[in-house]
Amino acid sequence: MVKINENFLSMEKNYLFIDIAKKVKAFTEAHPDKPLIRMGIGDVTLPLAPVVVEAIKKAADEMGVKETFRGYEDSGAGYDFLREAIADYYKSFGVSLNIADIRVNDGAKSDCGNITDIFGDGNTVLVTDPAYPVYVDSNVMAGRKIIYADSNEANGFAAMPDSSVHADIIYLCSPNNPTGSVYTKEQLAAWVDYALINEAVIIFDSAYEAFISDASLPRSIYAVPGAKKCAIEMCSLSKTAGFTGTRCGYTVIPEELTVKASDGSDVSLAQIWGRRQGSKFNGVSYPIQRGAEAVFTPEGQRQTREAIDYYRKNARLMADTLTELGINFTGGINSPYVWLKCPNNMGSWEFFDYLLDNIQVVGTPGEGFGKNGAGWFRLTAFNTYENTEEAMNRLKKLLG
Amino acid sequence: MVKINENFLSMEKNYLFIDIAKKVKAFTEAHPDKPLIRMGIGDVTLPLAPVVVEAIKKAADEMGVKETFRGYEDSGAGYDFLREAIADYYKSFGVSLNIADIRVNDGAKSDCGNITDIFGDGNTVLVTDPAYPVYVDSNVMAGRKIIYADSNEANGFAAMPDSSVHADIIYLCSPNNPTGSVYTKEQLAAWVDYALINEAVIIFDSAYEAFISDASLPRSIYAVPGAKKCAIEMCSLSKTAGFTGTRCGYTVIPEELTVKASDGSDVSLAQIWGRRQGSKFNGVSYPIQRGAEAVFTPEGQRQTREAIDYYRKNARLMADTLTELGINFTGGINSPYVWLKCPNNMGSWEFFDYLLDNIQVVGTPGEGFGKNGAGWFRLTAFNTYENTEEAMNRLKKLLG
Repeated sequence: MVKINENFLSMEKNYLFIDIAKKVKAFTEAHPDKPLIRMGIGDVTLPLAPVVVEAIKKAADEMGVKETFRGYEDSGAGYDFLREAIADYYKSFGVSLNIADIRVNDGAKSDCGNITDIFGDGNTVLVTDPAYPVYVDSNVMAGRKIIYADSNEANGFAAMPDSSVHADIIYLCSPNNPTGSVYTKEQLAAWVDYALINEAVIIFDSAYEAFISDASLPRSIYAVPGAKKCAIEMCSLSKTAGFTGTRCGYTVIPEELTVKASDGSDVSLAQIWGRRQGSKFNGVSYPIQRGAEAVFTPEGQRQTREAIDYYRKNARLMADTLTELGINFTGGINSPYVWLKCPNNMGSWEFFDYLLDNIQVVGTPGEGFGKNGAGWFRLTAFNTYENTEEAMNRLKKLLG
Repeated sequence: MVKINENFLSMEKNYLFIDIAKKVKAFTEAHPDKPLIRMGIGDVTLPLAPVVVEAIKKAADEMGVKETFRGYEDSGAGYDFLREAIADYYKSFGVSLNIADIRVNDGAKSDCGNITDIFGDGNTVLVTDPAYPVYVDSNVMAGRKIIYADSNEANGFAAMPDSSVHADIIYLCSPNNPTGSVYTKEQLAAWVDYALINEAVIIFDSAYEAFISDASLPRSIYAVPGAKKCAIEMCSLSKTAGFTGTRCGYTVIPEELTVKASDGSDVSLAQIWGRRQGSKFNGVSYPIQRGAEAVFTPEGQRQTREAIDYYRKNARLMADTLTELGINFTGGINSPYVWLKCPNNMGSWEFFDYLLDNIQVVGTPGEGFGKNGAGWFRLTAFNTYENTEEAMNRLKKLLG
């Protein structure tokens, strides 16, 4: 009889967004005259940049002509034109990457979930709390032991390593989802030190790096010396260039990153990840890779920065409003997320209902991202400026 | 210290295509005046159908306009427009599917490799030999016990179940890669019976179904009664519509397919696969899904059938040539692959060298697909008609 992976049965179902949808539906049915402002979505809303659209169309045309048609990509790791463009992009903020260390994928979530395949059982996985749920869920599925590092008000929602705690695999995300906090170079260096001492691997999610405007903050973990010996970096164009529905990202595993096997041999993580991908992935659509390449052209950068700046302006407005109201928060600068402490000691869900009922603003209760999210609340910068402004005006009237 | 998944270290590296490339390189360097005819590639060569190109371009344009832009797809399981188109396509050959049972993916290889995640340790995996290497490799990575069912000359390279053998997970591919053999409905019914009796799950790879011209042969395992209770079907548009570089496929897990967990509860495989995908996949690019939808329109079917017919004509020419030469083979009809017995008791690699040296035709040694491939050889129908004709003329001169 076939046996299923019973780890799936022990998974807590994440009811967060289902519960939000239910509450929103009930409210709109009861109050069809009160339109909502949705500040809970973690999805972009501005269209693809014109250069990206044109690049996809041009590549689609190539696919329709025998002479320029492309079938399977030989390596499945991404065309060199895109890997070179990504390496050049990194160069623009001072990080040097080998082309061969970059693998193009269909978005960070896939690799972030699938990377568990290359690690053995018996690893202890450390996740900061609160966190993007994929880090926890993909490891629960694999039956791994998970421990948590607290991100909280005291440390500005930027958990730091504890030398008395042992971990083998560490998930970090900066700028952070959901808290918007950003690690400084010194903070990241502390994590790199911890990983090197513990012979641990850091999986660094830099999905929101494009929102960093403060040049002193690291946009890649490889800005920290030694990181190439212990860190895998994952990023995507979802937030950088509005690719949430277009699907393209990349994973960097430096050749310097080796791990001792039980027979004492040094094993290259890039090599076994390549072996994994060779059997379980067949590369990203050629037209989409051309679209991604266009993001990194000077014109593509100019056009995509416009969208980022638009969201940033929203985030700034939210941050300024909360400052004015005397509400404690992280994010809002260098991040599209604002993570705020629910006023008057309200719980996350209590505050959710309070905003929905009184000013028809929908956000995300922080406890959906981990226990340290209790009493906190996430707002996002992806709505229009007009709606963001209206939501902030209502918030000021309500709480001011 | 982080521990890697050491199953990767025990994997035999598949040197097949590397070795072929080396031999071909050495030959062309020694004989630059003798151009090769490549009949080894398993990749399509004809361009995308015009309706597909137009659909991708139109969708790319939509992505460039705020009002029609699409971000994350809610379910990640594929837009209904495409899932409905796939269900209608199945209806055209008499198979009825629920829309909800279909999940769109970025090609069959991903799901075929990733599906191992939902099964527990302790399953015995049965793979026919020879076979597409992903079935074996993805299970070696997961540390599963693998047994083989012999496909050989005696059974027309269509392995049948042995009631004395116990298996929990069974991989079947029809039309078969590499042998081109196609299961009849009765043969598939025997596998379905075996699976139902053993409470096993069949993973049915129908990637080459569009090559079936004989209406009596099943194009889906669901043409067999009872299959929805025991079989997962995976297909892609790679061979159906030349999507090898465009990337789109689909997996069907019927709601009827449940498995008993250790606590006695019935678990829906579709549900845990959905949970898996929810954490490790974020859907297929919207423009690509629109391109895939176009494949299933009447005009798309007409245009893509033209390409299939072109490859079929090549396959038929190869089959006729081998018949004329008195060489035993499978495939060639209902399949883009021709699987032939190396003449004069030559080994696979011996015959490879023989063809390369004498007539500059490159094929694939059968032993690369499993031990039963020794002494057999694969030719593919994906070259041009002119080259296929020339290769067959040379073969006739050499062996006739």
